[in-house]
Amino acid sequence: MRYGIVGYSGRMGQELAALFAGKGHELVLSADKSGENVSAPPQVVLDFSLPQALPVTLRLCRSHKSALVLGTTGLGEAEAGEVRGLAQTVPVIHSSNFGVGTNILAMILQDYSGLLAEWELEIEEAHHNKKIDAPSGTALMLMRATGRTCPAHSLRLGNLPGDHTAHFAMGDELLSFTHRAVSRSMFAAGALKAAEFAVNSAAGYYNFQDVLRLTKK
Amino acid sequence: MRYGIVGYSGRMGQELAALFAGKGHELVLSADKSGENVSAPPQVVLDFSLPQALPVTLRLCRSHKSALVLGTTGLGEAEAGEVRGLAQTVPVIHSSNFGVGTNILAMILQDYSGLLAEWELEIEEAHHNKKIDAPSGTALMLMRATGRTCPAHSLRLGNLPGDHTAHFAMGDELLSFTHRAVSRSMFAAGALKAAEFAVNSAAGYYNFQDVLRLTKK
Amino acid sequence: MRYGIVGYSGRMGQELAALFAGKGHELVLSADKSGENVSAPPQVVLDFSLPQALPVTLRLCRSHKSALVLGTTGLGEAEAGEVRGLAQTVPVIHSSNFGVGTNILAMILQDYSGLLAEWELEIEEAHHNKKIDAPSGTALMLMRATGRTCPAHSLRLGNLPGDHTAHFAMGDELLSFTHRAVSRSMFAAGALKAAEFAVNSAAGYYNFQDVLRLTKK
Amino acid sequence: MRYGIVGYSGRMGQELAALFAGKGHELVLSADKSGENVSAPPQVVLDFSLPQALPVTLRLCRSHKSALVLGTTGLGEAEAGEVRGLAQTVPVIHSSNFGVGTNILAMILQDYSGLLAEWELEIEEAHHNKKIDAPSGTALMLMRATGRTCPAHSLRLGNLPGDHTAHFAMGDELLSFTHRAVSRSMFAAGALKAAEFAVNSAAGYYNFQDVLRLTKK
Repeated sequence: MRYGIVGYSGRMGQELAALFAGKGHELVLSADKSGENVSAPPQVVLDFSLPQALPVTLRLCRSHKSALVLGTTGLGEAEAGEVRGLAQTVPVIHSSNFGVGTNILAMILQDYSGLLAEWELEIEEAHHNKKIDAPSGTALMLMRATGRTCPAHSLRLGNLPGDHTAHFAMGDELLSFTHRAVSRSMFAAGALKAAEFAVNSAAGYYNFQDVLRLTKK
Repeated sequence: MRYGIVGYSGRMGQELAALFAGKGHELVLSADKSGENVSAPPQVVLDFSLPQALPVTLRLCRSHKSALVLGTTGLGEAEAGEVRGLAQTVPVIHSSNFGVGTNILAMILQDYSGLLAEWELEIEEAHHNKKIDAPSGTALMLMRATGRTCPAHSLRLGNLPGDHTAHFAMGDELLSFTHRAVSRSMFAAGALKAAEFAVNSAAGYYNFQDVLRLTKK
Repeated sequence: MRYGIVGYSGRMGQELAALFAGKGHELVLSADKSGENVSAPPQVVLDFSLPQALPVTLRLCRSHKSALVLGTTGLGEAEAGEVRGLAQTVPVIHSSNFGVGTNILAMILQDYSGLLAEWELEIEEAHHNKKIDAPSGTALMLMRATGRTCPAHSLRLGNLPGDHTAHFAMGDELLSFTHRAVSRSMFAAGALKAAEFAVNSAAGYYNFQDVLRLTKK
Repeated sequence: MRYGIVGYSGRMGQELAALFAGKGHELVLSADKSGENVSAPPQVVLDFSLPQALPVTLRLCRSHKSALVLGTTGLGEAEAGEVRGLAQTVPVIHSSNFGVGTNILAMILQDYSGLLAEWELEIEEAHHNKKIDAPSGTALMLMRATGRTCPAHSLRLGNLPGDHTAHFAMGDELLSFTHRAVSRSMFAAGALKAAEFAVNSAAGYYNFQDVLRLTKK
């Protein structure tokens, strides 16, 4: 596919470019603070940068009729409205978390929240020692999926890319659902899945769990 | 409730009696190789013994119009037919595994087998060093729930009541679903749940996962 | 061996009696709030009750020249001195934790505190939901063994008898040392080991780690 | 330090070069099948390539009086003799495994093999799905450290860099010692530690555990 990256020179931008290049996709647009380079109209634009970049991203998608894979969090109401507006003309995949496994885990926790309602719940997560926020955004996503609040334990250890476990206990039984990121590049793999979905889909506003459900074999 | 136990003097029979007594239920029928004691008609009969006991169990249920909670495995076709015949007149809960958590895990694995179809799968289980069969019956139940075959690793260690994990891997992500039995009496707790369901339900043939779904809050 | 139990009717007293009986040992002395029963001089007295019982325990050991296995915590200085005084005439094993595996883990953490000095450390423990204190006494023992302080995470889940893990991380490596109690009766097993040591040893004051080292094959 | 790499263009050679460059060390010698480049005499030469490269490595160390960090496995007797001969004039660190944590774990297992002699033992390891040999070399090193043989379970899952666990069980207790590689570059970190040790040490033949013991704070 022909694709573009907004926030090209950032860490996620570079990871996306490396992964997509390895799969034979063609980078035809790159944009960041230093300017824009466009060699052909992209089928899909990816933006995992900051809310400030959104106007550029929207303009590029509109002018090229490109699908959008958007990982930006912290959008205001007006900006979120514009994203939904774009989705009337092109496919837009918008999520705060593009982990395939983390989203499958969230879907399970939501689907089974009823059957597990009487079970005690605690969540723990472990990340590298540079991570400042705690609990992690993924831990909060998993907790929201359960529909309740619970104790959350955050360990900060070495270079760990990210473990998350939801422990459910009932009497003499313990059920533990664990996700382990083997490298921090797992989100780029999810973005690729989203981009492949986007270029083959009808206009509309999707989150990443929609992508997983709709591409299920 | 008023209940009866076939196989009363066996290990599971004794566990059931202890658990049910602790909950205030009334043992009105007990049967084993040494004979039968009946002090009142039971609302429900529990049989976690051997196929040889089935004729006694069926006769008792028919004559007292008792519901049946049946954990017997290895029934022949004729015997299975008789159990289904009984279910036309009373509630019958029949399963090879009365673990609440193990069955919830099996339900998840079945529901998500499509979304996890491309992930690699390995199962491991750990049990006490007296356990002879490997992989465990629960490990096989979980594997069946995934709809595929996979490597299964069996550890035999000390007095472990039973751990089971299904590991799914895809590139840089690992999803592990673990069930831990904290004591071997967890199956008695499931049998209690089944008995409580049985005495409040219409005639019919149910497995334990039906009980879990139908009693979901 | 002929043994006695102070605090016979308590939970630990009953567990000790059951375990020792199963091994063919002979209960010749039992004492608790309701009085004392002595049928023969015990070779060893076990006391896992409260500091208030100590005077009775000391008197019984002195009059029968019995060894002592003492699990009482929270002794004052004067009482601790009396225990050490007794140890001049009989073997006394005194520890706050009679877990074999937890003590081996503590010994490892102490021996390797130098080699692991630059590694980051976090401890986590999980216990049944009735446990009030956090972190657990065993977690604190493990932390002391490392010679430093660190974050400790306490999970309270179902009927878990007790898990403890010390995680050490250094860059791209994680070392995790885990102890799992499979049942709460593991401490009785350690007390048995201590009693067997006591009846075969010279007078002296030992802790449980001494017992482990001196009985090593 | 000024260092050299034999097997420069291989995967491990490239990882070493990247890590050492990041620490400000100076690559003054590189050798592989395509030839040799020497810009200054290296203080230490690293060789994690194949036995065929050993003659080149030995010649370079002799002519430059360089210390040697050698990760080559599968040496014949004559070759091993030559390595020991070199160690009479310069420091030589030779090990099959330069993982800091894996070696600390092996040291623990060896030191505590006596205290854990009566415990049941099983080892499990998990690696990426491209790994062909099973059990892994590290699993075998850990087993040797325990001084006995035991069941070993090998899981092959996604991109896992490598987990190893030694489980010890005794009755109601389970002790599990786990090492997790967070990335495959952990061995380069150990090689750096070895190189730093080598340039500051007297001539002699050391394995990596000697390095760990002698550099302990």
